Amino acid sequence: MLYDHLDKDDQRPVVPLSHGDPSAFACFRTSPEAVDAIVRAVQSAEFNSYAPTIGIVPARRAVAEYLSADLPYNLSADDIYLTVGCTQSIEVILSVLARPGANILLPRPGYPLYESRAGFSKLEVRHFDLIPEKGWEVDLESVEALADENTAAIVIISPGNPCGNVFSYHHLKKVAETARKLGIFVIADEVYGHIAFGSNPYVPMGEFGSIVPVLSLGSISKRWIVPGWRFGWIAACDPNGILKKYGIVDSIKSYFNISSNPATFVQVPLDPFAAIPQIFEKTKEDFFSNTINIMREAPDICYEKTKEIPCVTCPHKPDGSMFAMVKLNLSLLEDISDDMDFCLKLAREESVTILPGVAVGLKNWLRVTFSIEPESLEQGLDRMKAFCQRHSRK
Amino acid sequence: MLYDHLDKDDQRPVVPLSHGDPSAFACFRTSPEAVDAIVRAVQSAEFNSYAPTIGIVPARRAVAEYLSADLPYNLSADDIYLTVGCTQSIEVILSVLARPGANILLPRPGYPLYESRAGFSKLEVRHFDLIPEKGWEVDLESVEALADENTAAIVIISPGNPCGNVFSYHHLKKVAETARKLGIFVIADEVYGHIAFGSNPYVPMGEFGSIVPVLSLGSISKRWIVPGWRFGWIAACDPNGILKKYGIVDSIKSYFNISSNPATFVQVPLDPFAAIPQIFEKTKEDFFSNTINIMREAPDICYEKTKEIPCVTCPHKPDGSMFAMVKLNLSLLEDISDDMDFCLKLAREESVTILPGVAVGLKNWLRVTFSIEPESLEQGLDRMKAFCQRHSRK
Repeated sequence: MLYDHLDKDDQRPVVPLSHGDPSAFACFRTSPEAVDAIVRAVQSAEFNSYAPTIGIVPARRAVAEYLSADLPYNLSADDIYLTVGCTQSIEVILSVLARPGANILLPRPGYPLYESRAGFSKLEVRHFDLIPEKGWEVDLESVEALADENTAAIVIISPGNPCGNVFSYHHLKKVAETARKLGIFVIADEVYGHIAFGSNPYVPMGEFGSIVPVLSLGSISKRWIVPGWRFGWIAACDPNGILKKYGIVDSIKSYFNISSNPATFVQVPLDPFAAIPQIFEKTKEDFFSNTINIMREAPDICYEKTKEIPCVTCPHKPDGSMFAMVKLNLSLLEDISDDMDFCLKLAREESVTILPGVAVGLKNWLRVTFSIEPESLEQGLDRMKAFCQRHSRK
Repeated sequence: MLYDHLDKDDQRPVVPLSHGDPSAFACFRTSPEAVDAIVRAVQSAEFNSYAPTIGIVPARRAVAEYLSADLPYNLSADDIYLTVGCTQSIEVILSVLARPGANILLPRPGYPLYESRAGFSKLEVRHFDLIPEKGWEVDLESVEALADENTAAIVIISPGNPCGNVFSYHHLKKVAETARKLGIFVIADEVYGHIAFGSNPYVPMGEFGSIVPVLSLGSISKRWIVPGWRFGWIAACDPNGILKKYGIVDSIKSYFNISSNPATFVQVPLDPFAAIPQIFEKTKEDFFSNTINIMREAPDICYEKTKEIPCVTCPHKPDGSMFAMVKLNLSLLEDISDDMDFCLKLAREESVTILPGVAVGLKNWLRVTFSIEPESLEQGLDRMKAFCQRHSRK
């Protein structure tokens, strides 16, 4: 939509800092092993049939093994439900939780699909804050104040979208303990799982599954850089079987009877017994480390470049996911009314697209995507600097 | 589920007459052109990005052209929305139509996902009958009696699932005129479009789009025999722009903002400008005629074999889709309580799976899938005959 406002005489390429899809850039091409696996699955023409609604068992087992490697207990195929990407995972879970009077706790800023889906399902939303001064940690006091007997769950996006933060082990444990105290479970949106390049290592929320049941949402979209493949999962990280006991697991399974599922030939390459390469096992560690190394540069560029622009502040240098949140100081600009106005004019005048903070719940902030080629990122931020200078209050 | 009941000592292969997925059989392998198109799209690694929520424009244009070839007017890319198969098409449309008090007219027998999705969306269902003695035509009088000012639409499955009938041009026109008179629009589930091999040619409901607005649901699942590829569409066949005027088109588009979409590399092979083969154009007519020729034999086998079994009657020899409905005469059987009991015992004793009619809305009928290898079909029906003889009232 923002592209409609570009100046048609501007011959410079658009710098897309608005959404998290680096797959268009050569430096972020997916692993050849993953491509080869899908190609062979399609070529065999043996996987054109319908898959079971919750996914083929070997693929569910492969996801279970992939996740178990980072957990203190083992998941089994029974704990995994395959989805058409995280969009469907969110749809499934919020549809299952919606009942008259129920509410869900969502982070602010957050990922707006949660609000849209909750609204569609008539599930009441209550927002807790992430605190910029504390590296976007959860304001646990406000969580306790918001929850009541109708609260079903709390959503954590980890690593953070839109904040680019990686929660510490210690903080995630506190989130788990708070949820346990409140008698609610945790929905951990881990679509950016393993996309961490700072001092905090990525810790899956399932680590604390014995404190509180966790539904982890994951996908190959970000780590393998293939968002267009539409393949994700819901994992019940719940060694004490609480979600099963309360019927949540059965409700999730039932919902898949009336919902679509990912292409069979995208599931098959996860099957270690299929006569084709296995995406999880075969993708070399080099691929992941190369990607992370390119991404590691980006926050520095982002952080340093925004320091040169008086009207924006980045309170926390990102160390994960693909985004940074920067705060606008409108009093230093003379003809910009708000974040939306800033983004529209920036797109029109500089061919740089950025997401206005209002879209993720924080008015007069900006969400900058840094998962693009480093040179383009520098260019985009330089143009933003020129734009801010031109519009600065004299 | 039915497979759980198979006799473990029975060494014979299971004959699956229960669901419409012939892709597992060598004689129903998809066209090499379609496989090649997907393989090249994946191999290029250029189509790993997110697609727009309603699909990429060239693919939408290709679907529009494919459908327009059989219509008296041209559809454009704007009339097409790409989906993760017909399951999602049904989800989208029923979600959009649901509002307090609204109802929808569904055929009996029909496809049970409509009932499940309507129930989930709290959309009231009213059933009209299909008349077996009239080749499963719509009972138009009952349609008129059912509709009121809260009726949103009527669903037609054409060619018919589960009845295997192909509606005549004349009858479809009457359905359109009835809908127009009632002030409702038509949802035409044309997933089995072109799968017709009798005297009635397949006529898309959009033929009558100038009489009444039609939302046509289609997919490559059945004609290309690739249900696992999860690719379908919703087409607004509405030359007078009525669906647009009443906001239905905008509601459909909005729904896609909170729903998933098909893999990008499955959409790209529909783009005639992409540097890869184009599925619609390149699939040779031979492929379709071969498939239809194999399927053409099946209704004869089905019809003749069931004639040899006293306790079942097939009132209408199927001439389309992949199914036949046969009626059970329980009075001729001595230890079978109903259609479900029949199917469970048949599966256990003969390793033949059939769908009980109750699953599609007609108790004490059976839905027999005939889109399997002809020899297997004969075998399955022979086993059913032996089963019926063994259980016949002495």
